[in-house]
Amino acid sequence: MTVTLIAIACGFLAVLYGIFTRQSVLSAAAGTETMQSIADAIQTGAKAYLNRQYRTIAVVGLIVAIALFVAIDYLAALGFVIGAVLSGAAGYIGMLISVKANVRTTEAARSGLQQGLTIAFRAGAVTGMLVAGLALLAVAGYFAILVAGLGFDPTSREVINALVALGFGASLISIFARLGGGIFTKGADVGADLVGKVEAGIPEDDPRNPAVIADNVGDNVGDCAGMAADLFETYVVTVGATMVLSALFITSGAGDIMQLPLIIGGTCVITSIIGTYFVRLGKSQSIMGALYKGFIVTAVLSAIAMWFAMSFALGGDMNRGFAAGDMMVTGQDLYYCGLIGLVVTGVIIWITEYYTGTDYRPVRSIAKASETGHGTNVIQGLAISLEATALPALVICIGIIASYEIAGILGLGFAATAMLALAGMVVALDAYGPVTDNAGGIAEMAGLDDDVRSRTDALDAVGNTTKAVTKGYAIGSAGLAALVLFGAYTADLREYFTGVRVDFDLSNPYVVVGLFVGALLPYLFGAMGMTAVGRAGGEVVEEVRAQFRENPGIMEGTAKPDYARSVDLLTKTAIREMVVPSLLPVAAPVVIYFVIEAIAGQAAAFAALGALLLGVIVGGLFVALSMTAGGGAWDNAKKYIEDGNHGGKGSEAHKAAVTGDTVGDPYKDTAGPAVNPMIKITNIVALLLLAMLAH
Amino acid sequence: MTVTLIAIACGFLAVLYGIFTRQSVLSAAAGTETMQSIADAIQTGAKAYLNRQYRTIAVVGLIVAIALFVAIDYLAALGFVIGAVLSGAAGYIGMLISVKANVRTTEAARSGLQQGLTIAFRAGAVTGMLVAGLALLAVAGYFAILVAGLGFDPTSREVINALVALGFGASLISIFARLGGGIFTKGADVGADLVGKVEAGIPEDDPRNPAVIADNVGDNVGDCAGMAADLFETYVVTVGATMVLSALFITSGAGDIMQLPLIIGGTCVITSIIGTYFVRLGKSQSIMGALYKGFIVTAVLSAIAMWFAMSFALGGDMNRGFAAGDMMVTGQDLYYCGLIGLVVTGVIIWITEYYTGTDYRPVRSIAKASETGHGTNVIQGLAISLEATALPALVICIGIIASYEIAGILGLGFAATAMLALAGMVVALDAYGPVTDNAGGIAEMAGLDDDVRSRTDALDAVGNTTKAVTKGYAIGSAGLAALVLFGAYTADLREYFTGVRVDFDLSNPYVVVGLFVGALLPYLFGAMGMTAVGRAGGEVVEEVRAQFRENPGIMEGTAKPDYARSVDLLTKTAIREMVVPSLLPVAAPVVIYFVIEAIAGQAAAFAALGALLLGVIVGGLFVALSMTAGGGAWDNAKKYIEDGNHGGKGSEAHKAAVTGDTVGDPYKDTAGPAVNPMIKITNIVALLLLAMLAH
Repeated sequence: MTVTLIAIACGFLAVLYGIFTRQSVLSAAAGTETMQSIADAIQTGAKAYLNRQYRTIAVVGLIVAIALFVAIDYLAALGFVIGAVLSGAAGYIGMLISVKANVRTTEAARSGLQQGLTIAFRAGAVTGMLVAGLALLAVAGYFAILVAGLGFDPTSREVINALVALGFGASLISIFARLGGGIFTKGADVGADLVGKVEAGIPEDDPRNPAVIADNVGDNVGDCAGMAADLFETYVVTVGATMVLSALFITSGAGDIMQLPLIIGGTCVITSIIGTYFVRLGKSQSIMGALYKGFIVTAVLSAIAMWFAMSFALGGDMNRGFAAGDMMVTGQDLYYCGLIGLVVTGVIIWITEYYTGTDYRPVRSIAKASETGHGTNVIQGLAISLEATALPALVICIGIIASYEIAGILGLGFAATAMLALAGMVVALDAYGPVTDNAGGIAEMAGLDDDVRSRTDALDAVGNTTKAVTKGYAIGSAGLAALVLFGAYTADLREYFTGVRVDFDLSNPYVVVGLFVGALLPYLFGAMGMTAVGRAGGEVVEEVRAQFRENPGIMEGTAKPDYARSVDLLTKTAIREMVVPSLLPVAAPVVIYFVIEAIAGQAAAFAALGALLLGVIVGGLFVALSMTAGGGAWDNAKKYIEDGNHGGKGSEAHKAAVTGDTVGDPYKDTAGPAVNPMIKITNIVALLLLAMLAH
Repeated sequence: MTVTLIAIACGFLAVLYGIFTRQSVLSAAAGTETMQSIADAIQTGAKAYLNRQYRTIAVVGLIVAIALFVAIDYLAALGFVIGAVLSGAAGYIGMLISVKANVRTTEAARSGLQQGLTIAFRAGAVTGMLVAGLALLAVAGYFAILVAGLGFDPTSREVINALVALGFGASLISIFARLGGGIFTKGADVGADLVGKVEAGIPEDDPRNPAVIADNVGDNVGDCAGMAADLFETYVVTVGATMVLSALFITSGAGDIMQLPLIIGGTCVITSIIGTYFVRLGKSQSIMGALYKGFIVTAVLSAIAMWFAMSFALGGDMNRGFAAGDMMVTGQDLYYCGLIGLVVTGVIIWITEYYTGTDYRPVRSIAKASETGHGTNVIQGLAISLEATALPALVICIGIIASYEIAGILGLGFAATAMLALAGMVVALDAYGPVTDNAGGIAEMAGLDDDVRSRTDALDAVGNTTKAVTKGYAIGSAGLAALVLFGAYTADLREYFTGVRVDFDLSNPYVVVGLFVGALLPYLFGAMGMTAVGRAGGEVVEEVRAQFRENPGIMEGTAKPDYARSVDLLTKTAIREMVVPSLLPVAAPVVIYFVIEAIAGQAAAFAALGALLLGVIVGGLFVALSMTAGGGAWDNAKKYIEDGNHGGKGSEAHKAAVTGDTVGDPYKDTAGPAVNPMIKITNIVALLLLAMLAH
């Protein structure tokens, strides 16, 4: 238990770092009265939306918690509640610091680029460390309570169920937050862009656009709170699933191996905190370079520190063998798998940057295609989005083979755990994005000097890339985590359903059908997400047109638009639209199990359900990768044109690029990233279904 | 052999029908001199392109034929050549009749709607019956030569390899034809639309547009010749694979079962010919209704006739049991599976019409979304394209389960065979499309009266739906056919590689990796197809702008544009762009086999390769369905607006809808349908690889 307690201490350290850094952000100057009043409007809108969102989720959550209590036990219900509450908290706190930091970043950018970067990145780091810290506290803390407090055996069914339920709580909140926040933010963004940039010909963030505050609110509730809940969930699920897998696979000494993911998480929280201090502009004044410096320091330190931490946890003996199924696994093996995870993270980040950065062929090809119109821009963007799946998928395949060869499915778990252990740093890079996006908006709306705006623009452009990069990372790790969950599913079946001979062979028709249905889910889910954003965006367009019509003074700049009306409209739409798609991955595994069981019996049902899990992973990975990379590429193709290429702002190419960016918005910020928790929910629900059936 | 000879006779009958009907089409009046000169230009362009395309393919084909000769035997090489030549012939002859029928349809439409419909549908029926007839002749004829002529045992390795190679020949031509033709037609269409409709504000098919002839050429080489080669391939592969499966699975009396797919094909050729005589406008003057009448008559007659034909082939005993693996299968069982195939065909056609017809929610939602701009149109179109995969996938799943439960994997083969047996009728409906599309173009360019144009428009609008419907059918049947091929792969492994224990279990990491790599292929392939069209379209835009610039008289109507220059440009581009993507599915199975074999040995390599096959089926089905349905929906959303809804032609909504249509073009006519042969090539190459390894 010492190891677990150390991990808990590291979790507290991350929270402490968050609290202190928050103070330092808040102590910065908050700018002029105009700036503050804009920031206040954003803050009010964001809080109002999140309060309403969480109230809606709470209703669903309560029902699920009661169901778990009835169908399994109070420990599963409690785990679910802990996961749900802390996931929600991570998102909410992230939003709170983000809406305070935005205006302070604008104010700091008046002094210089480094000052702006410092505030924005610190705000991001608060969210990042809180996500990693709270996630670690959730898993390690609940594990300690169950094992040390309540005296359960670490490999007991109760502990396994409780850890799975913890992941379920986090995932369920996360899918709602990702989807609800995503619909809000992209409905606002799409609507504001269409009616503002395209129809009225006013720039982004122009205060005359009635949807402009809603757009900025969206950054905070979608890109910040939604993303934070998502990464929290991925962290909890990955670490939890690796622990569960250890419990199911290791025949002796499982308790020791189960604590390794926790100590890896704890170690990397510390290396992430150290990494944040290396985020400084160098001589080149490259913002991306500064952020990468922080990331690389964290990754390298983690690679080294992980060895010592794991060695400590295993009593100094990294060569001690643990029997896992029909192979022997040592600490050293698992360390190597962890290294594979770190390398996969680095390579995926690099590939994502290639596909979404303005310096490379993909984005430039979209920009070039914009010259011949809207149609060719979208065609090329779709082509890039399809293409962008290939390399990450291959890297993941190599990671799978390498870690399997070293330590079997457990090796995959440790690779995924090491990937996620860097979440603190990665979320910091990502949460920096909405802060700078808002900072630019506030600069524009407050009518600050052009050089301030150019600094916030520079900060914001980097934010686009870091946001894309995090998504690639989140989805890659989700793919691995989901495979770990699938491994847990098969292991669970073997362990607890010894009477049923499940045939997972590809020539079993129920396996084929399961794969088809599984691959169908991300498509249907994506369709719902896209439709919702289209509808919300359309409503915003109608609303803004109505305001322009009712009050012609708005466009002349003599009257203020009614910002709150747009925020309110979007709040209602987003909440309404998020519920059904979020329940799709919850219902699908249950439905397929019972339908196939009725047709062909339990063995066929288990086979179809297992194949569904793999189908949703395989299908979902491609849908999510293509959407997030494609969206990022469209966004930066627009930025590239705005930087003066292919005719620059206002040209026909620019208009085409705005269309592409609009299409990419729900791709990259609503449907795409929400596929990530969706994949895991499907897998977790299957595990819980087994727990219920075994109960 | 009598049964096979009857099937051959039916094949000849279809060819005879084609020859006579061609005469009746050609004997119709060909219109004014202007009309004929336009038609000549289209014909010259189409022939020039196809000649060049087939010359390029011939080089690749020759290399492959030699490789097969060296690696397997002369029978495989000969099979490959027969499949390739007849596939090419089906496409070429289809194009030849299409380019003659177009102007005759225009001329007939001057007299009335029924007259236009008759010519256009007869032309389509010629292509349809030639596709089905030649495909049946290829399989049944070569089978007869091998078994009756050369005296091979029907279940011998030589016959199996030869049939697989026959399918490979057809598939390889088909992927080139689909992709090359698709890039040509959609490059022309996208380019012409962008620069004509969007930039210059001139209507579709305006003779001032220098790309207008190229656009019409494209209809013939892509939508007609490419489609015909595709369906020919699907037919040959499905029937051939079902025969191979029968040879591998049935332990006694396999020769009898092997002839059943041939007699089913023969029967349905006759019912299809009968069905063509029912295509007549009723009192409602509904064109779609007339076409459906023909289809329904064919389907109902087929369902009845199939019973008698199968009963005859089995010596009147439909209850005779054949041992297939560990189950007994009767003629009656296989008949029921055939019925399932017919039902699946009907339901998929109905679903596709729902998603692409102007009368239903999906198309109307895209039209509505066009009101708020280009961006929301594309977002909604993408949403519909994602959504449109769900129901067909579920129907296919139900079809899989039902036919498996009745007769195992063999049942699936017979379901797929029955689906494909209707190909004559379905291709007739589809090949009708490019004829009417051209007819409209010729009416516009020749400056005929508005009421002629309105009749050709009415004929053309229906063509859009039938084209979409055929694609849904082709892809659904391709999914089933590919599963049959996968079944043949596993059966082949069991039969000829008894020493290797292949673990197809989903928890084998090489299976997981195979699934990922398989699912990756359609994405990468789709990306290449989309990029090629984007590039070709962009080149056309530049070319047209250059012509307008060099010769201002074109827009004023005082000078004729240089149509041949655009045709020539596209010919070069399409040929250049089609080669690499077409070779992707040929190379992928070989590469994964040898890479995994080097890492982890033969058993792992066979497992990964098998999973790759299933991955490409699962991944490809969704990519293809979403692309073809989405593209069709975008196209008809534009048509719906042009019918006067949401502001009608020239409105902002219309402009947005044109963008959506442009995006949908490569989706539905290039990348999407080409995924169909791609799925099968991957599977066939895997089978040939086994044949080579066993050799």
